[in-house]
Amino acid sequence: MTETASAPYVGDLLKDSPKNWGKWGADDEVGALNYLGPAQVLAAVALVRSGKVFTLQMPMGNPAGDPVWPGRRGSERYMLLDESHWLADKGPSLPGGLHYADDAMSAFLQGSTQYDALGHVWYDGEIWNGYDATSTIGGMAKASVQPIAEKGVVGRGVLLDMARHRGKETLDKGETFTQHDLLACAEAQGVEIRQRDILVIRTGFLNLFHQLGKEAFYDGFSEPGLTYSPELVQWFQDLEVPNLVTDTIANEVTIDPESGVALPLHCALMRNLGIVFTEICNLDKLAADCAEDGQWEFMYTAAPLKVVNGTGAPVNPVVIK
Amino acid sequence: MTETASAPYVGDLLKDSPKNWGKWGADDEVGALNYLGPAQVLAAVALVRSGKVFTLQMPMGNPAGDPVWPGRRGSERYMLLDESHWLADKGPSLPGGLHYADDAMSAFLQGSTQYDALGHVWYDGEIWNGYDATSTIGGMAKASVQPIAEKGVVGRGVLLDMARHRGKETLDKGETFTQHDLLACAEAQGVEIRQRDILVIRTGFLNLFHQLGKEAFYDGFSEPGLTYSPELVQWFQDLEVPNLVTDTIANEVTIDPESGVALPLHCALMRNLGIVFTEICNLDKLAADCAEDGQWEFMYTAAPLKVVNGTGAPVNPVVIK
Amino acid sequence: MTETASAPYVGDLLKDSPKNWGKWGADDEVGALNYLGPAQVLAAVALVRSGKVFTLQMPMGNPAGDPVWPGRRGSERYMLLDESHWLADKGPSLPGGLHYADDAMSAFLQGSTQYDALGHVWYDGEIWNGYDATSTIGGMAKASVQPIAEKGVVGRGVLLDMARHRGKETLDKGETFTQHDLLACAEAQGVEIRQRDILVIRTGFLNLFHQLGKEAFYDGFSEPGLTYSPELVQWFQDLEVPNLVTDTIANEVTIDPESGVALPLHCALMRNLGIVFTEICNLDKLAADCAEDGQWEFMYTAAPLKVVNGTGAPVNPVVIK
Amino acid sequence: MTETASAPYVGDLLKDSPKNWGKWGADDEVGALNYLGPAQVLAAVALVRSGKVFTLQMPMGNPAGDPVWPGRRGSERYMLLDESHWLADKGPSLPGGLHYADDAMSAFLQGSTQYDALGHVWYDGEIWNGYDATSTIGGMAKASVQPIAEKGVVGRGVLLDMARHRGKETLDKGETFTQHDLLACAEAQGVEIRQRDILVIRTGFLNLFHQLGKEAFYDGFSEPGLTYSPELVQWFQDLEVPNLVTDTIANEVTIDPESGVALPLHCALMRNLGIVFTEICNLDKLAADCAEDGQWEFMYTAAPLKVVNGTGAPVNPVVIK
Repeated sequence: MTETASAPYVGDLLKDSPKNWGKWGADDEVGALNYLGPAQVLAAVALVRSGKVFTLQMPMGNPAGDPVWPGRRGSERYMLLDESHWLADKGPSLPGGLHYADDAMSAFLQGSTQYDALGHVWYDGEIWNGYDATSTIGGMAKASVQPIAEKGVVGRGVLLDMARHRGKETLDKGETFTQHDLLACAEAQGVEIRQRDILVIRTGFLNLFHQLGKEAFYDGFSEPGLTYSPELVQWFQDLEVPNLVTDTIANEVTIDPESGVALPLHCALMRNLGIVFTEICNLDKLAADCAEDGQWEFMYTAAPLKVVNGTGAPVNPVVIK
Repeated sequence: MTETASAPYVGDLLKDSPKNWGKWGADDEVGALNYLGPAQVLAAVALVRSGKVFTLQMPMGNPAGDPVWPGRRGSERYMLLDESHWLADKGPSLPGGLHYADDAMSAFLQGSTQYDALGHVWYDGEIWNGYDATSTIGGMAKASVQPIAEKGVVGRGVLLDMARHRGKETLDKGETFTQHDLLACAEAQGVEIRQRDILVIRTGFLNLFHQLGKEAFYDGFSEPGLTYSPELVQWFQDLEVPNLVTDTIANEVTIDPESGVALPLHCALMRNLGIVFTEICNLDKLAADCAEDGQWEFMYTAAPLKVVNGTGAPVNPVVIK
Repeated sequence: MTETASAPYVGDLLKDSPKNWGKWGADDEVGALNYLGPAQVLAAVALVRSGKVFTLQMPMGNPAGDPVWPGRRGSERYMLLDESHWLADKGPSLPGGLHYADDAMSAFLQGSTQYDALGHVWYDGEIWNGYDATSTIGGMAKASVQPIAEKGVVGRGVLLDMARHRGKETLDKGETFTQHDLLACAEAQGVEIRQRDILVIRTGFLNLFHQLGKEAFYDGFSEPGLTYSPELVQWFQDLEVPNLVTDTIANEVTIDPESGVALPLHCALMRNLGIVFTEICNLDKLAADCAEDGQWEFMYTAAPLKVVNGTGAPVNPVVIK
Repeated sequence: MTETASAPYVGDLLKDSPKNWGKWGADDEVGALNYLGPAQVLAAVALVRSGKVFTLQMPMGNPAGDPVWPGRRGSERYMLLDESHWLADKGPSLPGGLHYADDAMSAFLQGSTQYDALGHVWYDGEIWNGYDATSTIGGMAKASVQPIAEKGVVGRGVLLDMARHRGKETLDKGETFTQHDLLACAEAQGVEIRQRDILVIRTGFLNLFHQLGKEAFYDGFSEPGLTYSPELVQWFQDLEVPNLVTDTIANEVTIDPESGVALPLHCALMRNLGIVFTEICNLDKLAADCAEDGQWEFMYTAAPLKVVNGTGAPVNPVVIK
């Protein structure tokens, strides 16, 4: 990620950007997920035709490495008990003599496919819904991932395969697209983007992590993704998007090329509008199937782990067609 | 857990118990989840009426403690970055100046609501499907939780509220029940148990963890649950149960009172029949709703984390009614 | 630890207590360890007579448990590689074919025998030497354990065996003693306490952790130890004590019985005078030897781990007689 | 580390290499440290002249990275409590109101300056003293680092500054030296290598980790160091070396250039002779001082952490001149 000394303060860039603070009450912690009620659930269920099931999480704790934001590390699983303990006469002795295996994991909560808490990113000393940013200290007292996990996410998902749409295996480093591109992609795919849809955007980018190797992947790190504009923000607001799901680490272009600001959409969409972000998905199998059967809409269900006070939590979303 | 010196070897107890090894091929790692195909998914979807959503995970990393099997510990979340770092001029400086929070977690993979890998428990040197038990060494090379997580679980779930059925807040320590009790419970609830149903059994027991406090909860640790009998095993086999879900730590009575063997159903149902276990759920809100609307059947969806080589993985199941 | 609602604010209790801030410069981070220079090292070396060596750390990562302050947990060691990996054909293959073992540890830095950083405890928004308490945020930017570890501690140590002096296996919960008791103990032992001595005080208390079991040990947790008085603080100051070493978790009585304040000596001696604390030692073998040969003075050497920004770090002190 | 397909099996290479198994009893776990008794301690003490103190550990948990063997990772320290918790009204409230800081660490036990357990490396299914290699499973039941930590290490140390001797800032990747070079270095330095000396060898190599950066440092990873020969092994045996201390990660050249075997001296010296290895030291300040005052011999004291069943443990050795 290259710093741009001349980037304006994100609070200045977004000083006229819309906010949904207070819209769902002073105590709200799930934001735009409030758009998903029984009607949206029933509409999603009605999309299921063939009974096919897809899971969207990346493997976690991969010995070959997990793609993560620079400065984080991949998950580490370690074994605590296995058959070798009995081979060495060190296994626990239970009545009846069964053997079992046990393990544990150390993981960054933002280090795999995960839901961000609404309070994960902020500026001007306030997080989502106007909670004071000091509420993040030592753990998210407000707008943590737990309320999202308690609610669960069920709705109509639409896959927008930007890589396929542009005839590429994967979008390039720093390659951008806008809401107009999303609409063009939807049109080309023959699918309609509807009010309160969960937008699932595919870039193919994280496949480069294993294809290029770690060093080349991180060299000049710059993910492809959506770029900020006031119009894009308004489009998300008007569409009442509850949840933005992508197969990149941060759901937007790393540095907005026009302003030079890092991750302005985390601020404009998540902090201000309460749109929930799901990151680091693997959408390859789902996309291949959609390309084959021409059905780009589906029932999307997901619930991250209920990590108390967490800034985010891992998730394995389930898509049903 | 009290040891019973005179307990027979579990391999002797189960020497005539049925096995599904090879039934789904020599390479199978998901066992009875093979019972869940498109037909079961579509049948599950057809159960959705009101669009209500429930999530079944316990909170994770609760500062007040997580209930876990004796010898394990609850999840520990720790903060790596929050607003205080900028208060002290130690926060990272991103172009545009946004702030963000980051955290990590150390967790036993069997230490929250979780799916067991099919290879989690074994005897006679062989795990599910006949894989050698040495394949567990250092990580589950076979029958890990990952294939379960890749497939995802979607089907018709039926809640059997044994606590409510017996007129109790919670079943007692070591209290048992059988398939006959499950059938009587279903009948009393007015719900039919069907072929290939995901059985979701409520005991209320883990509420005692916070009500009694840790010490009293673990004193003479003995969970309530199903007890072993050849007839019960055959009943599960005939019913083609893909997944057994409960709100206890181990899904069965801790020590089978008749034989004195610890956890024989892990051996008879999981290792031998390939039935997948989901443990440590919180079923209270779902049960209250079912009692109110009289609908004890629902669409059940779940996908544990795709932990490579894991003995199990946390999950937050989603139920839709 | 019982809270005493009526306890005065520690800053009021100590408002006239002496401070050594600035005494060793505005940048000092090792405080009273400055009392230990070449002269003290040479004097310590001159005490060695028989060539006997003692190590003072408690075992760490004991499967039977490590005694720690309530709310912390003991160290967890876990195996990453051992002979079983080659038994299962999973071991790394090095040229020549050697095998090796590897492991890792997760530990509270204050969770074993350890040196406290001088900035570990504070009040009134200032830590040792007047550094701002916000310098502790995210890691000790000032007065961390690292400068102590870089310097190392070598000097004349004197063991004061308060348990033996009072004819007990171990002091009782909450049992107190003062500088007068230390002097009486030294006199009874026939050893002189000299200027700039490292004071090593034995209570025997932590033996109760394994003798009584965890629950009884922590029930009404209250360690024995020194109690606060202005005279005691002045005594330490006049004596120029560089380092206070004990076999309790916190080096002083848990709650000062007179004022009701928790750990006032951490404030008066460590924060204000810069005296370095070494906690959770095992002094049993050393004490038995001193009782036998009548030599209660010795060369003391110790250097905690050089943990960057640490609040403390484990240590295994070495005593030579 | 480049694999050499044609490397002989290390057990064949060393089939006639001497062993000290049984020399200190069938239960011995400290090997050549038995050479260090009261006489050696007193001789070491007699070397102290000026009272200068040096500590030899590398910083640990350095945000800029810790140099470790490929495949391991550096130590991670994380904050659990600091002043920010009180700024946000989340700090614990102790009687009297003191504030304090707390942190924890996750570390590979071989990932900083450390003592290897004698059982850390083996071949032919047997570790030091003939213990079965299956004793390593899940934790070192035999020849762990704990007995070394209980004993402590005190003796005459001699610094052999191979980098300075060869007129270099640091030895090169893969650069080798032998016992003859050590003797020549000692002679040039004007110091005598005596029976039972602790040999402390400086290469300067790990300075390249921060100078070159991680990627360049690990590219074609090959440390400089001693090379295997039967004569070198016999020289260590005849000299009764208790402890080999260096400033490289593995104390010897990574791949022996003649045989192509990785780390043969771990096998010949540690596994077979019981010589204890101390790795990853920082010897720069000590070496600069020795070069200045011409005194290359000193009192060396060290005691790694008493990690129960550990394959090794961190240490901060103290040298006194």
